Amino acid sequence: MGNQQSIWFNPEKNIIEAIDQRLLPFENVTIVIGTLEEAINAISEMVVRGAPLIGVTAAYGMYFAARSYLGNNFQAEMNWAGERLKLSRPTAVNLAFAVDGALSVISDQLSDSENVELLFGYAENLRQREIDFSKKIGMFGLKLIRAISETKGGESVQILTHCNAGRLACVELGTATAPIYLAHEAGIAVHVWVDETRPRNQGARLTAWELSEAGIPHTIIPDNTGGHLMQHQMVDMVIVGSDRTTINGDVANKIGTYLKALAAFDNGIPFYVALPSTTFDWNLKDGILEIPIEQRDGSEVSMMEGMLDNEIRQFRIISEKSAVANYGFDVTPARLVTGLITERGECKATREGILNLFPEKRPSNE
Amino acid sequence: MGNQQSIWFNPEKNIIEAIDQRLLPFENVTIVIGTLEEAINAISEMVVRGAPLIGVTAAYGMYFAARSYLGNNFQAEMNWAGERLKLSRPTAVNLAFAVDGALSVISDQLSDSENVELLFGYAENLRQREIDFSKKIGMFGLKLIRAISETKGGESVQILTHCNAGRLACVELGTATAPIYLAHEAGIAVHVWVDETRPRNQGARLTAWELSEAGIPHTIIPDNTGGHLMQHQMVDMVIVGSDRTTINGDVANKIGTYLKALAAFDNGIPFYVALPSTTFDWNLKDGILEIPIEQRDGSEVSMMEGMLDNEIRQFRIISEKSAVANYGFDVTPARLVTGLITERGECKATREGILNLFPEKRPSNE
Repeated sequence: MGNQQSIWFNPEKNIIEAIDQRLLPFENVTIVIGTLEEAINAISEMVVRGAPLIGVTAAYGMYFAARSYLGNNFQAEMNWAGERLKLSRPTAVNLAFAVDGALSVISDQLSDSENVELLFGYAENLRQREIDFSKKIGMFGLKLIRAISETKGGESVQILTHCNAGRLACVELGTATAPIYLAHEAGIAVHVWVDETRPRNQGARLTAWELSEAGIPHTIIPDNTGGHLMQHQMVDMVIVGSDRTTINGDVANKIGTYLKALAAFDNGIPFYVALPSTTFDWNLKDGILEIPIEQRDGSEVSMMEGMLDNEIRQFRIISEKSAVANYGFDVTPARLVTGLITERGECKATREGILNLFPEKRPSNE
Repeated sequence: MGNQQSIWFNPEKNIIEAIDQRLLPFENVTIVIGTLEEAINAISEMVVRGAPLIGVTAAYGMYFAARSYLGNNFQAEMNWAGERLKLSRPTAVNLAFAVDGALSVISDQLSDSENVELLFGYAENLRQREIDFSKKIGMFGLKLIRAISETKGGESVQILTHCNAGRLACVELGTATAPIYLAHEAGIAVHVWVDETRPRNQGARLTAWELSEAGIPHTIIPDNTGGHLMQHQMVDMVIVGSDRTTINGDVANKIGTYLKALAAFDNGIPFYVALPSTTFDWNLKDGILEIPIEQRDGSEVSMMEGMLDNEIRQFRIISEKSAVANYGFDVTPARLVTGLITERGECKATREGILNLFPEKRPSNE
């Protein structure tokens, strides 16, 4: 089920443990993160990925950094640790928020060891908050699925998702998958079209694995397929996650999300983005102009990982003579988004819709 | 350059030879086709693929069948051979046209051996006609590229293409690639964004190989990437091929084409379809409703081919626990198509635009 966790604190060893997401679905291996370096590596190497999980990992990374800096120039070292963490993945805004949040709990009125305790508490709270947010997102999204199920007389609700905004991207339940898990638990028939999500195949590898584990019917499709399915009324709704959301409702998510949003819009199919409010970047107004898009290593395009003779191997899938490009994200403009599903409820992907749910974020001069 | 051929007749051995497209870009191997069975297998196994090349291969297949039926019940055997060829790939309309065209040259006024000669001539003519069509398509498309180049002051024209509508899909020059080859020959700077084209990767494997061989700058991108590039004005035009085109201008092409057409439309980027008129199905009016979409084996999605230790190997890239779906084509509605580039010139993707170029196809009651 979706309530298994992707990351957890091990109080005996005073470290965190997480599923190494690079090996799924072929192997389910737990990795240990107990230092700042290990947290940075886990994020940049995508051992952990997904905006909420990256934030949680970074918060623990700040705690691990703090306890190793006792007796040094604590505040300066912590600022430097935060800078390094922020650079480990450029697009996910949760990462910067988690780091800045951690830095903000440090007080020069307290001893370094008291600050270390505060940073531990901050990480634990952030982790728990992500779990709570996923549950609430799931409950609000469940209503949407239930409504479609009723119009279809209980026939399977066909849901398309892109990449992995599942429990592996969060701590528990996920964001885009949370409504799906809760619908399945509630006995509502669902079937999920899982976009493969090239080049890293997070849909085919991670989302499909999660859904398999939970016993939820699903079908892996190449990223090219969704438009055809939507043209033929084989998709009832799209739910995706977000790595960064502007105050106007533009959504940066895994590359290719924009293409599915266009197809949903063209075919009158609702396109929802499920997101904890931690992915809002309240300073941004125009996602396409303002959100930096990470370019990742070309080997993710030219090489592919798979199983051969029961071993995970890397193999080359294109000629060495051709150049490749590897953009990590794209921006779906708010006009293509039917609604945002947040921990406070569903809203239109507009500035007013968002600020009605989060009135404390309204600029004071309005 | 683009004038190397993908299929040719070997008069000494009285067979055809073709590049085995399953092995590119890793190995360049020539395969022999000298019987009906070999032609059927070459088409269904995608040794040869691309609508025009499939048609040419089928025409030679009819000739090979004919010469083996001498002394049998010739006409009945030929009808049966035609049926079997048509079933080897369901979507490409060129296949059925080539078969029906071959059957129509058979006359019961002639001896069987005279009919065999006619069938050979039919195949040779069809092959030559595809070469001529590609050249003409290239010349008309070149004008469009040249015009963009001039507005950019000679800076590289950025062209996105999907799948392989190159010389490998045709006989020489290709359809979507013909204007690109001619622009390169004319000294116009071009750069091609090559969609990987999952699940069979014809873009990453075939189009990139062709462009490499011709020395044309290009970059392989995951299929998810084109929307982002278009949002950021990194694409000046899209050119794709067609497997089947309705009289109203709807275009069935490799799955995922529709998504790129949506993105081009959303960003005001011209989206052209280059096609010989042999891909028109003059009886069809609504591509989405009327064109049957081939579903291919799921192993194309669950397995991937690549190089390991200098050998081409098949790898499993997803868990065996997940289902897959593999639709071969989608339909791009005419409203998203800027223009069709045919051997008679460019036209709007409308019934009137098409019938103005092909007035002999206008129903006699209009």
